[in-house]
Amino acid sequence: MTRILYSLCGRDESRPFSPHCWKVSLALAHKGLDFIEKPVAFTEIPKLEGGFSRTVPILKDGDRLVRDSFDIALYLEDTYPDRPTLFGGEGGKALSRLVEGFSQTLIHPVLTKIAVKDIHDMLAEPDQVYFRESREARLGQTLEAFSAAREAALADLSLRLEPVRHTLKLQPFIGGATPLFADYILFGALQWARVTTGLALLPDEDPVALWFGRCLDLHGGMGRAVA
Amino acid sequence: MTRILYSLCGRDESRPFSPHCWKVSLALAHKGLDFIEKPVAFTEIPKLEGGFSRTVPILKDGDRLVRDSFDIALYLEDTYPDRPTLFGGEGGKALSRLVEGFSQTLIHPVLTKIAVKDIHDMLAEPDQVYFRESREARLGQTLEAFSAAREAALADLSLRLEPVRHTLKLQPFIGGATPLFADYILFGALQWARVTTGLALLPDEDPVALWFGRCLDLHGGMGRAVA
Repeated sequence: MTRILYSLCGRDESRPFSPHCWKVSLALAHKGLDFIEKPVAFTEIPKLEGGFSRTVPILKDGDRLVRDSFDIALYLEDTYPDRPTLFGGEGGKALSRLVEGFSQTLIHPVLTKIAVKDIHDMLAEPDQVYFRESREARLGQTLEAFSAAREAALADLSLRLEPVRHTLKLQPFIGGATPLFADYILFGALQWARVTTGLALLPDEDPVALWFGRCLDLHGGMGRAVA
Repeated sequence: MTRILYSLCGRDESRPFSPHCWKVSLALAHKGLDFIEKPVAFTEIPKLEGGFSRTVPILKDGDRLVRDSFDIALYLEDTYPDRPTLFGGEGGKALSRLVEGFSQTLIHPVLTKIAVKDIHDMLAEPDQVYFRESREARLGQTLEAFSAAREAALADLSLRLEPVRHTLKLQPFIGGATPLFADYILFGALQWARVTTGLALLPDEDPVALWFGRCLDLHGGMGRAVA
Protein backbone atom coordinates (compact mmCIF):
# COMPACT_ATOMS: atom_id res chain seq x y z
CA MET A 1 0.00 0.00 0.00
CA THR A 2 1.30 3.41 -0.91
CA ARG A 3 0.40 6.22 1.46
CA ILE A 4 0.33 9.60 -0.32
CA LEU A 5 0.41 13.11 1.10
CA TYR A 6 -0.54 15.78 -1.43
CA SER A 7 1.10 19.03 -0.39
CA LEU A 8 1.86 22.44 -1.88
CA CYS A 9 4.86 23.87 -3.74
CA GLY A 10 5.79 26.84 -5.89
CA ARG A 11 7.94 26.49 -9.00
CA ASP A 12 10.39 24.34 -7.04
CA GLU A 13 8.89 20.94 -6.16
CA SER A 14 11.65 20.23 -3.68
CA ARG A 15 10.48 23.03 -1.39
CA PRO A 16 6.98 22.32 -0.12
CA PHE A 17 5.98 25.28 2.03
CA SER A 18 2.37 24.99 3.17
CA PRO A 19 2.19 25.25 6.98
CA HIS A 20 -0.74 22.85 7.08
CA CYS A 21 1.07 20.24 4.97
CA TRP A 22 4.14 20.47 7.20
CA LYS A 23 1.97 19.66 10.20
CA VAL A 24 0.87 16.46 8.50
CA SER A 25 4.35 15.44 7.31
CA LEU A 26 5.58 15.58 10.89
CA ALA A 27 2.46 13.87 12.22
CA LEU A 28 2.97 10.96 9.83
CA ALA A 29 6.65 10.69 10.81
CA HIS A 30 5.65 10.92 14.50
CA LYS A 31 3.42 7.88 13.96
CA GLY A 32 6.23 6.11 12.15
CA LEU A 33 4.17 5.83 8.97
CA ASP A 34 5.88 5.78 5.56
CA PHE A 35 4.46 8.08 2.95
CA ILE A 36 5.22 9.62 -0.41
CA GLU A 37 4.83 13.39 -0.54
CA LYS A 38 3.49 14.78 -3.80
CA PRO A 39 3.79 18.58 -3.82
CA VAL A 40 1.50 20.22 -6.36
CA ALA A 41 0.84 23.79 -7.52
CA PHE A 42 -2.24 25.70 -6.32
CA THR A 43 -3.99 25.25 -9.66
CA GLU A 44 -3.46 21.48 -9.63
CA ILE A 45 -5.31 20.89 -6.36
CA PRO A 46 -8.86 20.77 -7.78
CA LYS A 47 -7.75 18.04 -10.20
CA LEU A 48 -6.52 15.70 -7.46
CA GLU A 49 -8.45 12.55 -6.62
CA GLY A 50 -11.52 13.48 -8.63
CA GLY A 51 -11.84 16.95 -7.10
CA PHE A 52 -11.88 15.65 -3.52
CA SER A 53 -10.75 18.94 -1.92
CA ARG A 54 -10.04 22.54 -2.88
CA THR A 55 -7.13 22.64 -0.44
CA VAL A 56 -4.18 20.53 0.59
CA PRO A 57 -3.11 18.64 2.61
CA ILE A 58 -4.92 15.60 1.32
CA LEU A 59 -3.92 12.23 2.75
CA LYS A 60 -4.60 9.08 0.75
CA ASP A 61 -4.21 6.16 3.12
CA GLY A 62 -5.02 2.96 1.22
CA ASP A 63 -8.51 3.66 -0.06
CA ARG A 64 -9.24 6.36 2.53
CA LEU A 65 -9.05 10.04 1.58
CA VAL A 66 -8.84 12.61 4.36
CA ARG A 67 -8.48 16.40 4.10
CA ASP A 68 -7.68 19.22 6.60
CA SER A 69 -4.57 18.98 8.74
CA PHE A 70 -6.35 18.69 12.09
CA ASP A 71 -8.82 16.11 10.75
CA ILE A 72 -5.90 14.12 9.35
CA ALA A 73 -4.18 14.18 12.76
CA LEU A 74 -7.40 12.97 14.42
CA TYR A 75 -7.72 10.26 11.76
CA LEU A 76 -4.15 9.10 12.37
CA GLU A 77 -4.69 9.04 16.14
CA ASP A 78 -7.85 6.92 15.77
CA THR A 79 -6.50 4.63 13.06
CA TYR A 80 -3.06 4.01 14.56
CA PRO A 81 -3.70 4.09 18.33
CA ASP A 82 -0.74 1.84 19.13
CA ARG A 83 1.74 4.26 17.56
CA PRO A 84 3.08 7.25 19.56
CA THR A 85 0.23 9.58 20.48
CA LEU A 86 -0.21 12.94 18.75
CA PHE A 87 -2.42 14.38 21.48
CA GLY A 88 -1.72 12.70 24.82
CA GLY A 89 -5.39 12.12 25.58
CA GLU A 90 -8.72 13.86 25.21
CA GLY A 91 -7.60 17.03 26.99
CA GLY A 92 -4.69 17.36 24.61
CA LYS A 93 -7.02 16.97 21.64
CA ALA A 94 -9.30 19.75 22.85
CA LEU A 95 -6.49 22.14 23.79
CA SER A 96 -4.73 21.56 20.47
CA ARG A 97 -7.64 23.49 18.95
CA LEU A 98 -6.57 26.54 20.96
CA VAL A 99 -3.02 26.06 19.69
CA GLU A 100 -4.44 25.90 16.15
CA GLY A 101 -6.36 29.10 16.82
CA PHE A 102 -3.27 30.76 18.28
CA SER A 103 -1.22 29.86 15.23
CA GLN A 104 -3.80 30.74 12.60
CA THR A 105 -5.29 33.90 14.07
CA LEU A 106 -2.29 35.51 15.77
CA ILE A 107 0.86 34.12 14.13
CA HIS A 108 -0.10 33.51 10.48
CA PRO A 109 -1.29 37.10 9.79
CA VAL A 110 2.00 38.56 11.02
CA LEU A 111 4.06 36.05 9.06
CA THR A 112 2.10 36.98 5.94
CA LYS A 113 3.17 40.62 6.37
CA ILE A 114 6.78 39.62 6.93
CA ALA A 115 6.96 37.48 3.80
CA VAL A 116 5.99 40.14 1.20
CA LYS A 117 9.42 41.64 0.57
CA ASP A 118 11.15 38.27 0.38
CA ILE A 119 8.70 37.11 -2.22
CA HIS A 120 9.94 40.04 -4.29
CA ASP A 121 13.56 39.12 -3.71
CA MET A 122 12.93 35.50 -4.75
CA LEU A 123 11.61 36.53 -8.16
CA ALA A 124 13.55 36.65 -11.41
CA GLU A 125 14.58 40.17 -12.53
CA PRO A 126 11.74 40.94 -14.98
CA ASP A 127 9.22 39.75 -12.39
CA GLN A 128 10.86 41.96 -9.79
CA VAL A 129 10.30 45.01 -11.99
CA TYR A 130 6.63 44.10 -12.45
CA PHE A 131 6.25 43.22 -8.78
CA ARG A 132 7.79 46.47 -7.57
CA GLU A 133 5.71 48.67 -9.89
CA SER A 134 2.41 46.96 -9.22
CA ARG A 135 2.91 46.56 -5.48
CA GLU A 136 4.25 50.07 -4.87
CA ALA A 137 1.20 51.44 -6.70
CA ARG A 138 -1.05 49.31 -4.54
CA LEU A 139 0.72 50.03 -1.25
CA GLY A 140 1.21 53.72 -1.96
CA GLN A 141 4.82 53.45 -0.78
CA THR A 142 8.12 51.96 -1.86
CA LEU A 143 8.90 48.35 -0.96
CA GLU A 144 11.73 49.74 1.16
CA ALA A 145 9.28 51.90 3.12
CA PHE A 146 7.02 48.88 3.44
CA SER A 147 9.89 46.80 4.79
CA ALA A 148 10.11 49.29 7.67
CA ALA A 149 6.61 48.04 8.50
CA ARG A 150 8.07 44.56 8.30
CA GLU A 151 10.36 45.50 11.17
CA ALA A 152 7.26 46.37 13.19
CA ALA A 153 5.72 43.05 12.16
CA LEU A 154 8.81 41.22 13.40
CA ALA A 155 8.47 42.98 16.75
CA ASP A 156 4.79 42.08 16.79
CA LEU A 157 5.64 38.45 16.00
CA SER A 158 8.02 38.38 18.94
CA LEU A 159 5.35 39.79 21.27
CA ARG A 160 2.76 37.32 20.05
CA LEU A 161 5.11 34.41 20.75
CA GLU A 162 5.32 35.29 24.46
CA PRO A 163 2.89 32.49 25.44
CA VAL A 164 5.27 30.00 23.84
CA ARG A 165 8.28 31.41 25.72
CA HIS A 166 6.32 31.04 28.95
CA THR A 167 5.65 27.39 28.09
CA LEU A 168 9.25 26.67 27.12
CA LYS A 169 10.48 27.92 30.50
CA LEU A 170 8.73 24.89 31.93
CA GLN A 171 9.23 22.16 29.33
CA PRO A 172 11.23 21.55 26.13
CA PHE A 173 8.19 21.14 23.86
CA ILE A 174 4.68 22.57 23.83
CA GLY A 175 3.56 18.96 24.25
CA GLY A 176 5.77 18.51 27.33
CA ALA A 177 8.94 16.40 27.50
CA THR A 178 8.42 15.27 23.91
CA PRO A 179 6.52 16.88 21.00
CA LEU A 180 2.85 16.47 20.24
CA PHE A 181 0.72 17.63 17.31
CA ALA A 182 0.50 21.02 19.06
CA ASP A 183 4.23 21.47 18.39
CA TYR A 184 3.75 20.60 14.73
CA ILE A 185 0.97 23.18 14.42
CA LEU A 186 3.24 26.07 15.39
CA PHE A 187 6.23 24.50 13.67
CA GLY A 188 4.26 24.49 10.42
CA ALA A 189 3.74 28.24 10.63
CA LEU A 190 7.40 29.06 11.27
CA GLN A 191 8.61 26.50 8.74
CA TRP A 192 6.40 28.12 6.12
CA ALA A 193 8.09 31.47 6.85
CA ARG A 194 11.52 29.82 6.88
CA VAL A 195 11.09 28.12 3.49
CA THR A 196 9.52 31.12 1.75
CA THR A 197 11.65 33.91 3.22
CA GLY A 198 14.88 32.27 4.33
CA LEU A 199 14.84 34.79 7.19
CA ALA A 200 15.85 34.16 10.76
CA LEU A 201 12.76 35.69 12.31
CA LEU A 202 14.06 35.50 15.87
CA PRO A 203 17.44 35.91 17.55
CA ASP A 204 19.33 32.60 17.75
CA GLU A 205 19.12 32.52 21.53
CA ASP A 206 15.36 33.16 21.66
CA PRO A 207 13.73 30.19 23.41
CA VAL A 208 11.28 29.90 20.51
CA ALA A 209 14.17 29.78 18.02
CA LEU A 210 15.84 27.06 20.11
CA TRP A 211 12.59 25.09 20.20
CA PHE A 212 12.19 25.55 16.44
CA GLY A 213 15.70 24.16 16.00
CA ARG A 214 14.75 21.12 18.06
CA CYS A 215 11.70 20.64 15.83
CA LEU A 216 13.83 20.95 12.67
CA ASP A 217 15.93 18.06 14.01
CA LEU A 218 12.97 15.74 14.68
CA HIS A 219 12.31 12.59 12.65
CA GLY A 220 15.65 12.49 10.91
CA GLY A 221 15.80 16.24 10.38
CA MET A 222 13.01 16.20 7.81
CA GLY A 223 12.21 19.86 8.43
CA ARG A 224 15.83 20.97 8.13
CA ALA A 225 16.25 19.05 4.86
CA VAL A 226 14.13 21.66 3.06
CA ALA A 227 15.54 25.19 2.98
CA MET B 1 -10.69 18.35 58.14
CA THR B 2 -11.10 21.92 57.01
CA ARG B 3 -9.73 22.76 53.59
CA ILE B 4 -8.75 26.42 53.30
CA LEU B 5 -8.09 28.55 50.23
CA TYR B 6 -6.36 31.83 51.01
CA SER B 7 -7.26 34.33 48.31
CA LEU B 8 -7.09 38.07 47.71
CA CYS B 9 -9.53 40.93 48.32
CA GLY B 10 -9.59 44.70 48.49
CA ARG B 11 -11.53 46.58 51.17
CA ASP B 12 -14.54 44.37 50.50
CA GLU B 13 -13.96 40.80 51.66
CA SER B 14 -16.98 39.55 49.74
CA ARG B 15 -15.34 40.33 46.40
CA PRO B 16 -12.21 38.26 45.93
CA PHE B 17 -10.70 39.30 42.60
CA SER B 18 -7.34 37.58 42.05
CA PRO B 19 -7.37 35.74 38.71
CA HIS B 20 -5.11 33.05 40.11
CA CYS B 21 -7.33 32.46 43.13
CA TRP B 22 -10.41 32.19 40.92
CA LYS B 23 -8.70 29.43 38.97
CA VAL B 24 -8.28 27.46 42.18
CA SER B 25 -11.80 28.09 43.48
CA LEU B 26 -13.21 26.60 40.30
CA ALA B 27 -10.68 23.76 40.29
CA LEU B 28 -11.71 22.79 43.82
CA ALA B 29 -15.40 22.91 42.88
CA HIS B 30 -14.64 20.91 39.71
CA LYS B 31 -13.16 18.18 41.92
CA GLY B 32 -16.19 18.38 44.21
CA LEU B 33 -14.01 19.35 47.19
CA ASP B 34 -15.44 21.50 49.98
CA PHE B 35 -13.33 24.43 51.07
CA ILE B 36 -13.47 27.65 53.04
CA GLU B 37 -12.21 30.71 51.17
CA LYS B 38 -10.35 33.25 53.27
CA PRO B 39 -9.74 36.41 51.25
CA VAL B 40 -6.95 38.56 52.69
CA ALA B 41 -5.38 41.93 51.83
CA PHE B 42 -2.03 42.10 50.00
CA THR B 43 -0.21 43.10 53.17
CA GLU B 44 -1.61 40.15 55.12
CA ILE B 45 -0.20 37.48 52.80
CA PRO B 46 3.30 37.31 54.31
CA LYS B 47 1.78 36.64 57.72
CA LEU B 48 -0.17 33.56 56.56
CA GLU B 49 0.90 30.08 57.64
CA GLY B 50 4.23 31.18 59.05
CA GLY B 51 5.24 33.12 55.96
CA PHE B 52 4.72 30.16 53.64
CA SER B 53 4.31 32.26 50.47
CA ARG B 54 4.53 35.86 49.32
CA THR B 55 1.57 35.34 47.01
CA VAL B 56 -1.87 33.78 47.05
CA PRO B 57 -3.49 31.41 46.27
CA ILE B 58 -2.35 29.20 49.10
CA LEU B 59 -4.22 25.94 49.61
CA LYS B 60 -4.18 24.28 53.01
CA ASP B 61 -5.42 20.73 52.52
CA GLY B 62 -5.25 18.96 55.87
CA ASP B 63 -1.60 19.37 56.83
CA ARG B 64 -0.46 20.01 53.25
CA LEU B 65 0.30 23.55 52.12
CA VAL B 66 0.52 24.23 48.36
CA ARG B 67 1.07 27.53 46.58
CA ASP B 68 0.79 28.70 42.93
CA SER B 69 -2.43 28.10 41.02
CA PHE B 70 -1.00 25.68 38.46
CA ASP B 71 0.87 23.70 41.12
CA ILE B 72 -2.33 23.51 43.16
CA ALA B 73 -4.22 22.16 40.13
CA LEU B 74 -1.50 19.53 39.59
CA TYR B 75 -1.64 18.66 43.30
CA LEU B 76 -5.43 18.23 43.15
CA GLU B 77 -5.18 16.06 40.03
CA ASP B 78 -2.58 13.80 41.67
CA THR B 79 -4.25 13.68 45.09
CA TYR B 80 -7.83 13.19 43.91
CA PRO B 81 -7.44 11.12 40.74
CA ASP B 82 -10.91 9.54 41.05
CA ARG B 83 -12.64 12.92 40.93
CA PRO B 84 -13.36 14.63 37.55
CA THR B 85 -10.12 15.36 35.75
CA LEU B 86 -8.77 18.91 35.45
CA PHE B 87 -6.48 18.12 32.52
CA GLY B 88 -7.80 15.14 30.55
CA GLY B 89 -4.42 13.41 30.46
CA GLU B 90 -0.75 14.26 30.08
CA GLY B 91 -1.21 16.15 26.82
CA GLY B 92 -3.79 18.36 28.44
CA LYS B 93 -1.41 19.06 31.33
CA ALA B 94 1.36 20.15 28.99
CA LEU B 95 -0.86 22.27 26.73
CA SER B 96 -2.48 23.96 29.73
CA ARG B 97 0.90 25.65 30.18
CA LEU B 98 0.45 27.33 26.81
CA VAL B 99 -3.01 28.45 27.88
CA GLU B 100 -1.43 29.84 31.06
CA GLY B 101 1.15 31.64 28.94
CA PHE B 102 -1.56 32.95 26.61
CA SER B 103 -3.55 34.33 29.52
CA GLN B 104 -0.66 35.81 31.46
CA THR B 105 1.44 37.27 28.64
CA LEU B 106 -1.21 38.39 26.14
CA ILE B 107 -4.47 38.88 28.05
CA HIS B 108 -3.43 40.08 31.53
CA PRO B 109 -1.39 43.08 30.29
CA VAL B 110 -4.31 44.40 28.25
CA LEU B 111 -6.77 43.88 31.11
CA THR B 112 -4.44 45.82 33.38
CA LYS B 113 -4.64 48.81 31.03
CA ILE B 114 -8.41 48.55 30.84
CA ALA B 115 -8.86 48.48 34.61
CA VAL B 116 -7.05 51.73 35.49
CA LYS B 117 -9.94 54.13 35.06
CA ASP B 118 -12.43 51.90 36.87
CA ILE B 119 -10.10 51.64 39.82
CA HIS B 120 -10.37 55.42 40.02
CA ASP B 121 -14.14 55.31 39.83
CA MET B 122 -14.34 52.73 42.61
CA LEU B 123 -12.46 54.96 45.05
CA ALA B 124 -13.99 57.23 47.69
CA GLU B 125 -13.97 60.93 46.74
CA PRO B 126 -10.82 62.08 48.58
CA ASP B 127 -8.96 59.13 47.12
CA GLN B 128 -10.21 60.04 43.65
CA VAL B 129 -8.67 63.51 43.96
CA TYR B 130 -5.33 62.03 45.01
CA PHE B 131 -5.56 59.32 42.35
CA ARG B 132 -6.34 61.76 39.56
CA GLU B 133 -3.57 64.18 40.47
CA SER B 134 -0.89 61.56 40.94
CA ARG B 135 -1.84 59.45 37.94
CA GLU B 136 -2.31 62.36 35.54
CA ALA B 137 1.15 63.60 36.53
CA ARG B 138 2.58 60.15 35.90
CA LEU B 139 0.73 59.53 32.64
CA GLY B 140 1.26 63.02 31.29
CA GLN B 141 -2.41 63.16 30.27
CA THR B 142 -5.86 63.38 31.80
CA LEU B 143 -7.60 60.18 32.89
CA GLU B 144 -10.20 60.95 30.21
CA ALA B 145 -7.49 61.10 27.55
CA PHE B 146 -6.08 57.87 28.94
CA SER B 147 -9.48 56.23 28.72
CA ALA B 148 -9.35 56.85 24.97
CA ALA B 149 -6.34 54.55 25.09
CA ARG B 150 -8.58 52.17 26.99
CA GLU B 151 -10.80 51.97 23.92
CA ALA B 152 -7.74 50.89 21.95
CA ALA B 153 -6.96 48.35 24.67
CA LEU B 154 -10.46 46.93 24.38
CA ALA B 155 -9.95 46.51 20.63
CA ASP B 156 -6.59 44.91 21.32
CA LEU B 157 -8.22 42.54 23.84
CA SER B 158 -10.75 41.50 21.24
CA LEU B 159 -7.99 40.79 18.70
CA ARG B 160 -5.98 38.80 21.22
CA LEU B 161 -9.00 36.62 22.00
CA GLU B 162 -9.25 35.42 18.38
CA PRO B 163 -7.63 32.04 19.20
CA VAL B 164 -10.40 31.42 21.72
CA ARG B 165 -13.11 32.28 19.18
CA HIS B 166 -11.51 29.81 16.77
CA THR B 167 -11.69 27.14 19.47
CA LEU B 168 -15.28 27.93 20.43
CA LYS B 169 -16.41 27.43 16.84
CA LEU B 170 -15.52 23.78 17.35
CA GLN B 171 -16.46 23.06 20.95
CA PRO B 172 -18.34 24.73 23.84
CA PHE B 173 -15.32 24.88 26.20
CA ILE B 174 -11.58 25.23 25.71
CA GLY B 175 -11.37 21.80 27.34
CA GLY B 176 -13.84 20.32 24.82
CA ALA B 177 -17.41 19.27 25.58
CA THR B 178 -16.93 20.12 29.27
CA PRO B 179 -14.53 22.53 30.99
CA LEU B 180 -11.00 21.73 32.11
CA PHE B 181 -8.47 23.72 34.11
CA ALA B 182 -7.57 25.50 30.85
CA ASP B 183 -11.02 27.12 30.92
CA TYR B 184 -10.52 28.22 34.51
CA ILE B 185 -7.20 29.83 33.58
CA LEU B 186 -8.78 32.21 31.09
CA PHE B 187 -11.94 32.55 33.17
CA GLY B 188 -9.79 33.79 36.06
CA ALA B 189 -8.42 36.63 33.94
CA LEU B 190 -11.82 37.80 32.71
CA GLN B 191 -13.43 37.36 36.12
CA TRP B 192 -10.71 39.55 37.63
CA ALA B 193 -11.60 42.27 35.13
CA ARG B 194 -15.32 41.73 35.73
CA VAL B 195 -15.05 42.03 39.51
CA THR B 196 -12.72 45.03 39.52
CA THR B 197 -14.22 47.03 36.67
CA GLY B 198 -17.84 45.88 36.37
CA LEU B 199 -17.42 46.40 32.62
CA ALA B 200 -18.77 44.24 29.85
CA LEU B 201 -15.51 43.92 27.95
CA LEU B 202 -17.06 42.19 24.95
CA PRO B 203 -20.36 42.44 23.07
CA ASP B 204 -22.99 40.09 24.54
CA GLU B 205 -23.09 37.96 21.40
CA ASP B 206 -19.29 37.53 21.20
CA PRO B 207 -18.52 33.80 21.40
CA VAL B 208 -16.03 34.52 24.18
CA ALA B 209 -18.69 36.43 26.15
CA LEU B 210 -21.09 33.50 25.71
CA TRP B 211 -18.40 31.06 26.90
CA PHE B 212 -17.65 33.35 29.86
CA GLY B 213 -21.35 33.28 30.73
CA ARG B 214 -21.28 29.48 30.67
CA CYS B 215 -18.30 29.55 33.02
CA LEU B 216 -20.07 31.97 35.39
CA ASP B 217 -22.87 29.41 35.64
CA LEU B 218 -20.60 26.47 36.50
CA HIS B 219 -20.56 24.82 39.91
CA GLY B 220 -23.70 26.45 41.22
CA GLY B 221 -22.92 29.82 39.68
CA MET B 222 -20.04 30.48 42.06
CA GLY B 223 -18.45 32.95 39.66
CA ARG B 224 -21.67 34.87 39.07
CA ALA B 225 -22.31 35.14 42.83
CA VAL B 226 -19.50 37.73 43.11
CA ALA B 227 -20.05 40.98 41.21
